Amino acid sequence: MKPINLSRRQAIVRTGGALGLASVSTLTPISKALAKSKSSDKAAQLPAYAAWKDPEALIIHSANTMETKRNAFGSSLITPLDRLFVRNNLNPPPEHIVEDPDAWEIRIEGVKNPKTFTVAELKRLGLESVPMILQCSGNGRAYFPNKPSGTPWTVGAAGCVIFTGVPMKKVIEATGGITDGMVYMTSTGGEDIPEGIDPNTVKVERSVPVEAIEQALLAWEINGVPLPLAHGGPLRMVVPGYTGVNSIKYVKQVAFTEEQSPANIQQSGYRMAPLGEKGSPEFESVWEMPVKSWVTYPATEGETVRGGLVQIQGLAMGGASDVTEVEISLDGGEIWHKASFVGPDLGPYAWRQFIFPVELQPGEYVIASRASNAAGQTQPEERVENNRGYLNNSWHDHMLPIKVVS
Amino acid sequence: MKPINLSRRQAIVRTGGALGLASVSTLTPISKALAKSKSSDKAAQLPAYAAWKDPEALIIHSANTMETKRNAFGSSLITPLDRLFVRNNLNPPPEHIVEDPDAWEIRIEGVKNPKTFTVAELKRLGLESVPMILQCSGNGRAYFPNKPSGTPWTVGAAGCVIFTGVPMKKVIEATGGITDGMVYMTSTGGEDIPEGIDPNTVKVERSVPVEAIEQALLAWEINGVPLPLAHGGPLRMVVPGYTGVNSIKYVKQVAFTEEQSPANIQQSGYRMAPLGEKGSPEFESVWEMPVKSWVTYPATEGETVRGGLVQIQGLAMGGASDVTEVEISLDGGEIWHKASFVGPDLGPYAWRQFIFPVELQPGEYVIASRASNAAGQTQPEERVENNRGYLNNSWHDHMLPIKVVS
Repeated sequence: MKPINLSRRQAIVRTGGALGLASVSTLTPISKALAKSKSSDKAAQLPAYAAWKDPEALIIHSANTMETKRNAFGSSLITPLDRLFVRNNLNPPPEHIVEDPDAWEIRIEGVKNPKTFTVAELKRLGLESVPMILQCSGNGRAYFPNKPSGTPWTVGAAGCVIFTGVPMKKVIEATGGITDGMVYMTSTGGEDIPEGIDPNTVKVERSVPVEAIEQALLAWEINGVPLPLAHGGPLRMVVPGYTGVNSIKYVKQVAFTEEQSPANIQQSGYRMAPLGEKGSPEFESVWEMPVKSWVTYPATEGETVRGGLVQIQGLAMGGASDVTEVEISLDGGEIWHKASFVGPDLGPYAWRQFIFPVELQPGEYVIASRASNAAGQTQPEERVENNRGYLNNSWHDHMLPIKVVS
Repeated sequence: MKPINLSRRQAIVRTGGALGLASVSTLTPISKALAKSKSSDKAAQLPAYAAWKDPEALIIHSANTMETKRNAFGSSLITPLDRLFVRNNLNPPPEHIVEDPDAWEIRIEGVKNPKTFTVAELKRLGLESVPMILQCSGNGRAYFPNKPSGTPWTVGAAGCVIFTGVPMKKVIEATGGITDGMVYMTSTGGEDIPEGIDPNTVKVERSVPVEAIEQALLAWEINGVPLPLAHGGPLRMVVPGYTGVNSIKYVKQVAFTEEQSPANIQQSGYRMAPLGEKGSPEFESVWEMPVKSWVTYPATEGETVRGGLVQIQGLAMGGASDVTEVEISLDGGEIWHKASFVGPDLGPYAWRQFIFPVELQPGEYVIASRASNAAGQTQPEERVENNRGYLNNSWHDHMLPIKVVS
């Protein structure tokens, strides 16, 4: 491959991607990381409930918002838990709720026989394991030029994990079936609501179309361990294919409802409102994820790479259907080449890892990736503009200029 | 299901399985586990190189031998790294070798152009991720009645992990191809060999049939993180489908050879010698794993379970081919029922998780599981007797008596 001249496209690559993307060229093994997390200044920025995270692998935006660095996803499909992003809408409940996970209770409403189950009881109803992408609705917000309010996530408010729990369909079966006419599944989080304010202004309660019961789980385990508080333990509603906000942490109630939740987070939050407008029910709710991909090696804007054979790497998701193809461009999107998938296909809700082996001569390149899915959708060049910076899947926004030297 | 009378079979269930299988009824989340690992007495038994392991999830036999408790595999297919078994033939090399993994060197011999590569150079040659079972050749040794020498592993000297590295075929391509006439791939570990003794008596060097290049990797990553020293970092030869001893840690040389290694570990160790005989080249070498399964819930001999609907759980592997079916018996192997697989199929070298949902009345049961694979093999009732207790895949040895109460 020949180097290219820097195009107009490269000139307008936004610098949001550089936010905290310091190079971690050799991530240390666990033992080192653990030792480091005791001593480093960065570790001190981690809140107590996430003190077991690897601070070297994270961009810590705040005590409730931490994202995985672009070079820290690993190359083994499943995101290590200590590198997985964290995003809470409210402060998490106290740690003691995960001390005896089996005792946690959840109420099921909007069914023929409403009932309260402990997690111990749910464990008797059935079991399923689903590899799935957990991605914040605002992942990629840093690339919106209008600087929407909210955390300026680059690519790291996403991870692929294995959730294990009971299929919602088994829970519905055990409660006599959904009441006729109910068209939403509305889940309520177990956060403490401050006194003296209208709960709807703060409570974390989300409705998704009832069809999501096909793949939804009540999960008590993530990557083989009991769900930690930081990720919604002791019990989380997980809705594969939907953005993270729809997978309600510390879930204390699931109700099948005729209407969407009256909570602000449903009515005005997470709506695809046009620029300059406020969120409201007239605009589409942020539910399913779109087709998307990004390169993870190289991983830093302006990174210098030695020439010769290079394995360009990345992650690609189909969104709500299987990802079927990934293309790579080295010139900011003028010419595209087919990449290859690496590792097993973990199903429609997981991402796939891809590589593009290429001999690179010294010069400047702008690397872009573009995924397509089984539904026939291809990752678009441009983002869908919206006032809060949701669902950014623009390949242009995620591309990366690099320098190859001899 | 009706309770059964305890049969002859139950009466002879060996008690090896009870070794340290104390109940961990609610495994604590990571944050708790980490806190605990600082204070508990059990943590003090962990050697420095494995201090980051979760001592509550392990049976610690010695500083170089730790197995996962039967109830600590998790239900999400991939074994969490801090619960994965450890087994070293020699003490591991010093920790500093994983500080700069990219600098580690490996020599490739028995090829047209022998060459030394750094890990950084290997990373340019190619990339593959393989979910695979890592299992000690002696897993299940505790159930041999003749008490062979070696660690009395029950079921936990096994785990399913995702290894990532460069396919051996890419390395062979880069060195001009295998020299004609070479029929073994012989890998040498990087352990320090004590002065003044014949290296062959202690060195960790194993030969496998050259056909294993089809699936072998030189791996620098496990479950998304750089390979820790405890699991063979910075670089390990991994041979999917073969027992753990064939996946050489801290690998410093791979040679294609006409003969098997002269090391004792190849010539006399890991041989299927009959009872009372010593290992020698005339007996079969321990290479590929056989079809096998075991139940992980319930997980303790004599465990008391409350009656009603119960999700019996377990893990099943095909060995060298896909696992295709698992059957469950509640009466020590008289009557068999078909179990269902849970979660995605991660390929022929991974295990699959199974469940058998059953209404249990109060009484006594003996739970057994029996797997079959795509090659038409079914897990046998009896172990293959051998002097060192290798390759135990007897369903009878792995069955578990439980008590169901109202």
